[in-house]
Amino acid sequence: MRIVLCGIGVVGKALLQLLLDDRRWLADHHGFAPRIVGAADSRGVAASKNGLDLLGLLSLKARTGSVGTGPIPDLPQFIADTDADVFVQAVPTNVRNPTDAIDQCRAAIHSGKHIVTATKSPLACAMASLKDAAAAHRVRFGYSATVGAGTPMLALAARCALGDRVTRIEGVVNGTTNYILTAMENKGETFEAALLQAQKLGFAETDPSADVDGLDTACKTVILANEAMHRRAVFTDVRIDGIRHVTPDWIGQAASAGRRIKLVGRADEHGLSVAPREVPIGSPLDVPGTTNALCISLERGGDVTLTGRGAGGFDTASAILRDLLDVWRSMRGE
Amino acid sequence: MRIVLCGIGVVGKALLQLLLDDRRWLADHHGFAPRIVGAADSRGVAASKNGLDLLGLLSLKARTGSVGTGPIPDLPQFIADTDADVFVQAVPTNVRNPTDAIDQCRAAIHSGKHIVTATKSPLACAMASLKDAAAAHRVRFGYSATVGAGTPMLALAARCALGDRVTRIEGVVNGTTNYILTAMENKGETFEAALLQAQKLGFAETDPSADVDGLDTACKTVILANEAMHRRAVFTDVRIDGIRHVTPDWIGQAASAGRRIKLVGRADEHGLSVAPREVPIGSPLDVPGTTNALCISLERGGDVTLTGRGAGGFDTASAILRDLLDVWRSMRGE
Repeated sequence: MRIVLCGIGVVGKALLQLLLDDRRWLADHHGFAPRIVGAADSRGVAASKNGLDLLGLLSLKARTGSVGTGPIPDLPQFIADTDADVFVQAVPTNVRNPTDAIDQCRAAIHSGKHIVTATKSPLACAMASLKDAAAAHRVRFGYSATVGAGTPMLALAARCALGDRVTRIEGVVNGTTNYILTAMENKGETFEAALLQAQKLGFAETDPSADVDGLDTACKTVILANEAMHRRAVFTDVRIDGIRHVTPDWIGQAASAGRRIKLVGRADEHGLSVAPREVPIGSPLDVPGTTNALCISLERGGDVTLTGRGAGGFDTASAILRDLLDVWRSMRGE
Repeated sequence: MRIVLCGIGVVGKALLQLLLDDRRWLADHHGFAPRIVGAADSRGVAASKNGLDLLGLLSLKARTGSVGTGPIPDLPQFIADTDADVFVQAVPTNVRNPTDAIDQCRAAIHSGKHIVTATKSPLACAMASLKDAAAAHRVRFGYSATVGAGTPMLALAARCALGDRVTRIEGVVNGTTNYILTAMENKGETFEAALLQAQKLGFAETDPSADVDGLDTACKTVILANEAMHRRAVFTDVRIDGIRHVTPDWIGQAASAGRRIKLVGRADEHGLSVAPREVPIGSPLDVPGTTNALCISLERGGDVTLTGRGAGGFDTASAILRDLLDVWRSMRGE
């Protein structure tokens, strides 16, 4: 399988490292020997018909900050022109300007490439139309890595939705905010102090807005609702409230009532929302630190709850690998 | 899709009811309009090329205890002779004599029928060889309903195993024993008293051995281990200890150490086992009543935990329906 990879940040590098480390196991167990025939980051591109040397690529990226040299690449053109089976997308999510990432997906679809993406914005903003386009062009569109990192939340959601009806989804699906809320609760800290600490430890970005203002959770809620509830929702359908206004006082009052405050993404008959909500201590959504939880309510089957690690480059890369193996199986007619 | 169904007990009846109730929804949403062209229980058979009337079938079963009249049918022959696409198996699990249920599966495979089963014994005793035979005959073999009832534990296990390595599985996968243990803990009852109460409420069978002696959990542990850890284990590989010897004293001592006793099925590098084990209160396996829990440890992805209802005719029938929809999609080339 020939791959063109765009985005060599935390996730892209983890994927390259994983393909290196697991090369033998993947070949032995799955007959899977992928080649990266094209790689691009925001500053340059690299390409080789026979497959790039992954170690060399990682080392070049570490030394120079890019896998290639300028000029700044036209990624859709690069994706369309590269002779590959699959486009792997690991560029940063930007819901304020999703166009670039969507254009990359369209370029892949129109040049007959399967897509495996870890970038949330194309799905949060154009999931239904991209899926329709992929189906029309008979290419696969894998996006396991966009929700839950290595915890297969979307696979579970899809499975639950088959043969039963999902009436509600609730998720604690952003590790950064859950880490901050857990720290505020455990140490009585203010939001600002807990955020600063999370940034120092690498659990929060320098610009924390996507996490603490609920944008990341909103993207994931859209993807989950579309997957499990057969909706065609987009990011702007979500009522979003973040955690900046959560105070130690509120946390204390909730605790004395046997509750914890979690940033909850929810989809139900009232629509999609993201907001800090009080959940009973010990209930399925009461997960600590960077753990993620997803609760799916089924009309017939009751509540199904999944918890697991929801963040991390290698976990996200694992999810990309699962989708690549799915594509590989379908290419082999399995 | 033409179905031949064997076993019209709690699960078989629930499936017929579900196909009746959801007829319109299944047709509209999935283009799925199955016909039951053959049905058999231990006392008789019924068949119709155009599809049996489901309401009539259920009413006959309720009135007479059977869907047909004697003599006692030769089920493998009936399965082989019925012109159907799929064999649905919902006969009772009997691990002491799994031959009959295995023979039914073989008859289906050799007559080119897909299989969807809720019966654990063929999988617990011959999973690897039946899967090999099904693959060789290019028929699908669905067994979602054998573990977790409506909670898609096997789908999650398979997904987790793809692209990562499962190092350990632990499950609380038998609702009856968990109900009894929860009652013993909450009311300080003896095992015998709690069992009697569970039998009165319909949570335990008149012959409770399969549940309380750990046989049901052992079957499910075999199926989970084979699915997630690529093993070829069989029932006799499992070291099995049930809950008859759990005392109120032990439960009390565990509680004072912050632990609860659960019947845990486990597969790891030491092999497969079923035994009552102390688990920390609030840990993933600490689920109450008839709730099931499955904890999958991944080499790369950490622990993934799934909880949900693990019992009930309609829940199990939902899982059968999911597998039928999978078969239906593959028949349509999706």
